[in-house]
Amino acid sequence: MPIKKIAILGSTGSIGLSTLQVVQKLKPSFQIVGLTAYQNIQVLARQIKAFKPKLAAVMDEGLVANLKNMVKGTSTKIRGGQEGVVAVAGESGADLVLSAIVGAAGLKPTLTAIQKGKDIALANKETMVMAGEVVTKAARKSGSKILPVDSEHCAVFQCLVGSAPESIYKILLTASGGPFRNLNRKRFNKITLKQALNHPTWRMGPKITIDSATLMNKGLEVIEAHYLFHVPFGKIDIIIHPESIVHSMVEYIDGSVLAQLGTTDMQIPIQYAMTYPSRQKAPVARLDLTMIRQLNFQKPDRAKFPCVDLAYEAGKKGGTYPAVLNAANEIAVSRFLKGDISFVQIPKIIDKVLAKYRPLTNGTLDGILNADLWARTEARSIY
Amino acid sequence: MPIKKIAILGSTGSIGLSTLQVVQKLKPSFQIVGLTAYQNIQVLARQIKAFKPKLAAVMDEGLVANLKNMVKGTSTKIRGGQEGVVAVAGESGADLVLSAIVGAAGLKPTLTAIQKGKDIALANKETMVMAGEVVTKAARKSGSKILPVDSEHCAVFQCLVGSAPESIYKILLTASGGPFRNLNRKRFNKITLKQALNHPTWRMGPKITIDSATLMNKGLEVIEAHYLFHVPFGKIDIIIHPESIVHSMVEYIDGSVLAQLGTTDMQIPIQYAMTYPSRQKAPVARLDLTMIRQLNFQKPDRAKFPCVDLAYEAGKKGGTYPAVLNAANEIAVSRFLKGDISFVQIPKIIDKVLAKYRPLTNGTLDGILNADLWARTEARSIY
Repeated sequence: MPIKKIAILGSTGSIGLSTLQVVQKLKPSFQIVGLTAYQNIQVLARQIKAFKPKLAAVMDEGLVANLKNMVKGTSTKIRGGQEGVVAVAGESGADLVLSAIVGAAGLKPTLTAIQKGKDIALANKETMVMAGEVVTKAARKSGSKILPVDSEHCAVFQCLVGSAPESIYKILLTASGGPFRNLNRKRFNKITLKQALNHPTWRMGPKITIDSATLMNKGLEVIEAHYLFHVPFGKIDIIIHPESIVHSMVEYIDGSVLAQLGTTDMQIPIQYAMTYPSRQKAPVARLDLTMIRQLNFQKPDRAKFPCVDLAYEAGKKGGTYPAVLNAANEIAVSRFLKGDISFVQIPKIIDKVLAKYRPLTNGTLDGILNADLWARTEARSIY
Repeated sequence: MPIKKIAILGSTGSIGLSTLQVVQKLKPSFQIVGLTAYQNIQVLARQIKAFKPKLAAVMDEGLVANLKNMVKGTSTKIRGGQEGVVAVAGESGADLVLSAIVGAAGLKPTLTAIQKGKDIALANKETMVMAGEVVTKAARKSGSKILPVDSEHCAVFQCLVGSAPESIYKILLTASGGPFRNLNRKRFNKITLKQALNHPTWRMGPKITIDSATLMNKGLEVIEAHYLFHVPFGKIDIIIHPESIVHSMVEYIDGSVLAQLGTTDMQIPIQYAMTYPSRQKAPVARLDLTMIRQLNFQKPDRAKFPCVDLAYEAGKKGGTYPAVLNAANEIAVSRFLKGDISFVQIPKIIDKVLAKYRPLTNGTLDGILNADLWARTEARSIY
């Protein structure tokens, strides 16, 4: 296998760090040519020294001088701002761009990489949620392959290998159900931030951990799956599976169901996206079902978790609605993380923003970004 | 899709009947051109009238005249004896031969079909167990594709689509554990025929139901998997899964596990073998994991079920040993079904026959058939 050149957008976050661990393990098959971070220049500088990328960028332009100082003597070129991040995506010479920036900020650089025909390992689900139509159209045009890194979509992707789209009966996205799966609905008023940040099975960043607690994470994944796999919303279901061992499933028209299972280690889907279509040996903790003994499944309680229905509704409406959903959710979650609103106010804010929204465009990139901005302003002003 | 012509060897047994139901459902994609039965000419005659094959054969030659009489007026040619069954396999004009004869009797006709380059839907696991090397060599030479119909091997086959052989870490064959999974070993002496025939999850013929109760069925499947998928015995494991929903799994070198799930309906794997590589919509009962709620897994108790170790040992020795294992087991099971020996004597007989066996050849077809005969005689004479 020739050396694959990789750029990581968001290399200091949870997924970025795991990706660098995979690169470390699979040396010399991979080479890092680009890295970006939002503000964490301490970690970024260490990564630059270790992996010697051609280009690196820090989103916060005020930190460019500091970063340059920290990596003096390396040959890495340092850039700043969104323009810098977009440059890493498009101009670092990567074969594969791992898109792991959290939230809407990942859209523009990811789309740039797609337009330049780079293959994408997509961990930034907002790209697909906000701009699924724009992104898939651009990928078709440039020939860019989009390889999902989300454990659920990576599972579906693996279950679909070699299958014709018309043979899909249903995509079944599994959800741990989060920390409040068994909590009585009446006690949702009293949920604390600490409780919400305590995910039962996965260790992840704070934003996605809250999204898991509200099940909005699964709602966003439904929209992502719709665009990634070109399957209508009526054929995408959510199934609660507290152990997070079955990462998702595909049910076929002949009654067969294929499932992908594994330990809750993001290095597995990250590596699959990196080595696809082949697989490479990895020193990961192996799944032993005889130790786990039991896998449980149940229907999601949509009354307890209104974010699921909100996501399906926005997804079915299409156009700029998913972007509005996503932006309202980002603001609501960041307000909850700051202690500004309560847990149950998260879906209420999103619901109010969606109800008030009147789309002006049918989903061009500018229209999407405007809708995103509008929804953020609205979501900040409620409560 | 052009019409696929199908011959069924063993059309009046459990798998044969299910196959005809699938053909009925998927009309007009399939056409029956050949049918065979052992002795059940009542059912065979009805099938001949309904499906109008070109050729049909009854193994018991004494019944040929009767059968001819019963289907007078149809254009189906009737043959008898093994020669007749072999003729249906090779000369009925089939594109796909479904091999569903129970036991060693299926070997010769199946091998004939393979040598003639027919694709095989293989439900007769004895073909692979007895003559795995001969059969796979013949298939390579003729270009015949062997599509497994056993639910476990069909599951593995589906989990392997698009994968390189070197990416397999382990094949995990699931086993219900049979009716005696939770029975204390001390009470195995008292197992009755009725108890052994009461399989918890699958409805099957008597021979395979007893094999499920002793776990020899899984042992034979390990040997079958070894030859079908060219995987060493050290990479094939058995895992007890009482619900029989996960039909088997493949663990890959990167830590990913793919599993195939479905209801316990043999029409699903039969249809997959018939429509492969595509899938067709089927009016089957759909799997609903939220109704099943729980899937359990545990290690097999090899002390309680010595047939597992016997099968691994015979498989690893290779050559004619698997044929001896299989023949001794067939006789032991038929003696148990007749009330001649007890349940715990089944593995003891097989063990004694294997211990006494001294191979003369390294596995030509004649050598295999001689070893088979020798083992049968031995197995009849113990106890």
